[in-house]
Amino acid sequence: MKERLSLYDTTLRDGQQTQGVQFSTAEKIRIAEALDRLGVDYIEGGWPGANPTDSAFFDAAPKTRATMTAFGMTKRAGRSAENDDVLAGVLNAGTPAVCLVGKTHDYHVSKALGITLAENTENIRASVAHLVAQGREALFDAEHFFDGFAANPDYALEALHAALQAGARWIVLCDTNGGTLPDRIGRVVEEVIAAGIPGDRLGIHTHNDTEMAVAGSLAAVDAGARQIQGTLNGLGERCGNANLVSLIPTLLLKEPYASRFETGVSEEALEGLTRLSRMLDDVLNRVPLKQLAYVGASAFAHKAGLHASAILKDPSTYEHIPPETVGNRRFIPMSNQAGQSNLRRRLSEAGIDVPAGDPRLAHILEVVKAREAEGYAYDTAQGSFELLARRELGEEVDFFEVKRYRVTVERRKNKENRMVSLSEAVVVVKIDGEKRLSVSESMDETGADRGPVNALSKALAKDLGRYSDAIEDMRLIDFKVRITQGGTEAVTRVIIDSEDGQGRRWSTVGVSANIVDASFEALLDAVRWKLVRDRGIAAAA
Amino acid sequence: MKERLSLYDTTLRDGQQTQGVQFSTAEKIRIAEALDRLGVDYIEGGWPGANPTDSAFFDAAPKTRATMTAFGMTKRAGRSAENDDVLAGVLNAGTPAVCLVGKTHDYHVSKALGITLAENTENIRASVAHLVAQGREALFDAEHFFDGFAANPDYALEALHAALQAGARWIVLCDTNGGTLPDRIGRVVEEVIAAGIPGDRLGIHTHNDTEMAVAGSLAAVDAGARQIQGTLNGLGERCGNANLVSLIPTLLLKEPYASRFETGVSEEALEGLTRLSRMLDDVLNRVPLKQLAYVGASAFAHKAGLHASAILKDPSTYEHIPPETVGNRRFIPMSNQAGQSNLRRRLSEAGIDVPAGDPRLAHILEVVKAREAEGYAYDTAQGSFELLARRELGEEVDFFEVKRYRVTVERRKNKENRMVSLSEAVVVVKIDGEKRLSVSESMDETGADRGPVNALSKALAKDLGRYSDAIEDMRLIDFKVRITQGGTEAVTRVIIDSEDGQGRRWSTVGVSANIVDASFEALLDAVRWKLVRDRGIAAAA
Repeated sequence: MKERLSLYDTTLRDGQQTQGVQFSTAEKIRIAEALDRLGVDYIEGGWPGANPTDSAFFDAAPKTRATMTAFGMTKRAGRSAENDDVLAGVLNAGTPAVCLVGKTHDYHVSKALGITLAENTENIRASVAHLVAQGREALFDAEHFFDGFAANPDYALEALHAALQAGARWIVLCDTNGGTLPDRIGRVVEEVIAAGIPGDRLGIHTHNDTEMAVAGSLAAVDAGARQIQGTLNGLGERCGNANLVSLIPTLLLKEPYASRFETGVSEEALEGLTRLSRMLDDVLNRVPLKQLAYVGASAFAHKAGLHASAILKDPSTYEHIPPETVGNRRFIPMSNQAGQSNLRRRLSEAGIDVPAGDPRLAHILEVVKAREAEGYAYDTAQGSFELLARRELGEEVDFFEVKRYRVTVERRKNKENRMVSLSEAVVVVKIDGEKRLSVSESMDETGADRGPVNALSKALAKDLGRYSDAIEDMRLIDFKVRITQGGTEAVTRVIIDSEDGQGRRWSTVGVSANIVDASFEALLDAVRWKLVRDRGIAAAA
Repeated sequence: MKERLSLYDTTLRDGQQTQGVQFSTAEKIRIAEALDRLGVDYIEGGWPGANPTDSAFFDAAPKTRATMTAFGMTKRAGRSAENDDVLAGVLNAGTPAVCLVGKTHDYHVSKALGITLAENTENIRASVAHLVAQGREALFDAEHFFDGFAANPDYALEALHAALQAGARWIVLCDTNGGTLPDRIGRVVEEVIAAGIPGDRLGIHTHNDTEMAVAGSLAAVDAGARQIQGTLNGLGERCGNANLVSLIPTLLLKEPYASRFETGVSEEALEGLTRLSRMLDDVLNRVPLKQLAYVGASAFAHKAGLHASAILKDPSTYEHIPPETVGNRRFIPMSNQAGQSNLRRRLSEAGIDVPAGDPRLAHILEVVKAREAEGYAYDTAQGSFELLARRELGEEVDFFEVKRYRVTVERRKNKENRMVSLSEAVVVVKIDGEKRLSVSESMDETGADRGPVNALSKALAKDLGRYSDAIEDMRLIDFKVRITQGGTEAVTRVIIDSEDGQGRRWSTVGVSANIVDASFEALLDAVRWKLVRDRGIAAAA
C-alpha cells in the first residue's frame, strides 16, 4: 500500500506575489482548470476580500475536482472570529477549504502584532474553530515556523497544537523568509512529529532563496510531512516558491518516492506537464526558461558531440528519465540526421511528405536556422513554418502581392472636445494582375479604437478578389508581442493566433524593428496559411 | 580551526555546453579574471586540442591566483599515455593542473569504449601517473559515478582507487546525467569514504536535472567531500551545473557551513557576487533572471503589503540575509497589494514626504488599484508611479500639453524597387501658451526603419521649448510590450525604460487597445519624470 501525498498549489495566491505578475480573472480560471487536469489536491485561489481580482475569481471559479481553497489570516485580537470582517471576507468566498496564516514566532507576535502569546494562541484556536463550525476544511499556515521554532520551540509548538486541537486538517510549516536549509527542515519536521503533530497532518511550504526549495520540500517528506505546497514554474515572491513542476516528476518517477507514495497526478497527466509549464509562461507572456528541470527546452538537449552520439546508442547515458514521460522531447542540433528526421515528422504533420535524404530537407533546416537568428520563432508559429517549408519545396503560397500599405495613428480632440485616438489603414494588393485598394479604420462596434493592427487586418481582408470567400470565416484570436534579438539589433516579434469557422487554429510570426510592420507580416502569413489549406475551395471559386 | 573547502569553477568548459553559448577568447579571459577576483581555487579553462577556441584561451590565459586547469580525457586503450595525442594536446596547454574524465561505470566501459574493465583501470592509472610525472596536479573526474556505483560498486571503487594510487590530488564524483537525488549522493559519498578514499581528496560534480544540483553538492560536503565543482549562474548542458553563485553565499553565510569551513572567497569578494552574476549575463547578452537566489533583482523584493510593512520594522522577517552582503539590494515595488507603509516608503525614496495617516495615501492606493485593473502595472513602472502620486498630491507634473499627434507607417517600393518600411510622426504640443509642431521620421543612422514609436519619440523630443535642454541627455534603452486584460477587453501594456546622462534609469507605463497610443503614453511619462526630477534646472533655464 502506498502512502498518499497531498499536493497544494498556490500559484494563484503566493505565485501572484511574483514581481510583475498580476493575473486577470480569465487567466486565473484558465490556470485553475489546467491545475485540475494535472491532478493537484488543493487550488489556493487568492485572498478574497483583500484583493478585488481575487474576489472576482472566486465568484467565477470553475468547478474542480481539486479542493478550491481561499487564503486569509487568523482573526485579530480584541474581536471574536465571528466579528472579524477580514475573516468574514475570506469565508464569504464560499470555498470548501480555507487556509489561514498565523504567527508561531514569539518575536513576531509581540513585535509585529503587539499582543501576548496567549492572545495569539487564542486567535489561532478561535479562527480555526470558526472555520470548522462553518463546515469548512481548515488549513493553518504557520508563518516563520522554522525561525520561531529556533527562537522559542515551546511556543511554536503551542501554536501548532492550538490549530490542531481546533480541528485543522493540515498544519503547514512555512519557511517564510526562505533561509532554512533542507537538512534543518528535515530535523525540525522530525521534532514536530515527535512533539505530537502527526505527519499525515503536516505540510511544508518553502521558498527558493538558497535555490533549495525543492530539496527542502523533499527533506520534509523524508521526515514524515505529507503535504507539499508549491507553485507552477516556481512562481512566487522574491526567488519564488517550491516548484511543483520539478517536484511532481521526481515524486512520480524517482525512488524512494515512486514506490512509497501516490499523488493525484496520473502518468497520463504527467505527460501534459511540459505543455502546462509553457502555458503558464504564455499567460505571463514570458519566454520559457530553457534550463528548467524536466520541462525546459534544453532539459534533454545534447550539444556535445560525444554526448549526442552516445545518446543515439543508449539514451540513458545522458538522460535521467525518458523525456516523453513529462511531455518533453529530446533535442539534438538540427545539423545532423536526427534534425532531419524531426523535420520530416513536422512536415508530415502538415500533410507534406518528403522522402528521407532529400537534399531539400537540409536546405529547409538552413533557412529555419538563418531566420531564427533574425528573431523568428517557428516552434510556436507552426503556420509560418509550414509556409516556409512549402515555399522552399517550390509550392505556390503567395496568392496575391501586397504592393504597399499605409496606416496612420492619430490622437486629437473630437467634436465633444475629448482626446480620442483613431487608426486608418490603406492596403493595396495585386490579384490576378489587377490592383485593388482597400481602406479601413480601427473602430469596433462600440466606437472604441482597436489600434493600427486591427485597421490593417480589416483593410487587408476587405477585398481579396476570388480569395475573399475563403477568408471570410477567419478571425484573429490572440496577438503576442515580444522584443527579442535579431542579429545584433533588438527587433519586435509578433505572433498572431487565428481561427476559422471549422474551429482550426494556427499561429504565424512576423519580425521587424517596426512593430506595425512585424504585425502586418504575421497577418499576411495567417491569410496565406488559410488559402493554402483551402486551396481547393479558392480554386473552385 | 576551520576546514578548507575547495571551489572548482567549470564555467569556461562545462558551462560552454549550454545551448547557444560559445565564448570568445576575450570573453573567457574576462570571466577568468572575474573568477579569480571572486576567489575560486581552480579555473577549468576548456579542453585544449579538442576545441580551437579553448586552445587559444590557454595561449592567452591571464595569470591567476587560482590554479588554471585544462580538461581532457584519460588515454585510450592500445597506446601509452606518452603516445596518446589527445592527452598530449591537453598537456601542451602547460597548465599547473589537469583534470581528466574517465569511466567508472562498467556498462559504459564495455558498451561505449568496448574494452575490458582491467584495460579501463589501467588507462586511468597510467594517465594520472603521466600527469604526475610531468609535474602537474592531477584531478580525476569519475563520469557516471553514481550510476556506476549502483550497477557495480566494486568496479566503480576500483577505478577511483587506481586514480588515487597514481597520485590524483582530487577524485571528483560526477552525477553525469543529473538524476541522483541529494539524499543518495550523501549516502554514496559516505560509502566511498568508508571504502578508503579520503574525504579531503573527494570532489562533487552535480547537474540540475531535478532542480537539486545545489542541494546535492551540499549533501556531498555534509558526507565529507571537500571540493565542489560548479559554474557561474548554473550554466551548463541541459539544465545546467551546480550554481556556484548560490552555493558560495550559503557556504559563507549559513550554518553549519559558515562556522565549519573556509573557502578562498572573502567577505569583501562576496559583496561583488551580484555584479559578477550580472556581468556573465552581459557577456552572454541575456536578461538577468530576477528570481535567482541571492543575486536576482527580485531576491529581496517585497510585494505583499503585509510583508512590506513588516520589513520596515525588521528586515529579518522576510530577508534571510542582509542583501548588501552579496552586493544586492532591497526593493519594495508598488502594486495593488501594497499597504500604506510600503507606499510612504516608496514616496520617501522619491523625495516625497507624506505623514502617516494622511488621507491622500489611501486615495493614491485607490487610484493605483483602479489603474492596475485597467491594465497598468506600477511595480515595475516606478517612474509612472511617482508621477501618479505627485499628481494626486497636487503637484505640477504636466509641464506641457500634447494637443495632438499623428504617426504613419508605410511599406512600399523605394526608388531601387525594393520594399521598404518607413514611419513619420507629427507631434503638436502647447508650452507656455505657445503651439509647437514637430515632425520626425523613423530612420536610424544606418538608414534602417526603427518604427513608429521611434519616430514619435524623436518628434516629441525635437522641440519642447524651455524644457528641451533638460531632456537632451535622455535615451530609450528598453521597450516591453504585453497584451493584457484591461477591464473586460484585451489591451496593450507598454513599459519603457529610459536613461539619462547621469546614469539614472527609470521605467514608465502606457496602456491602450492601440499599441502606438500606449507607447506614446509611456514616452510622455518618461519625459515628464525627467522634467520633475530636473525641475530646478528647467526652471532656471
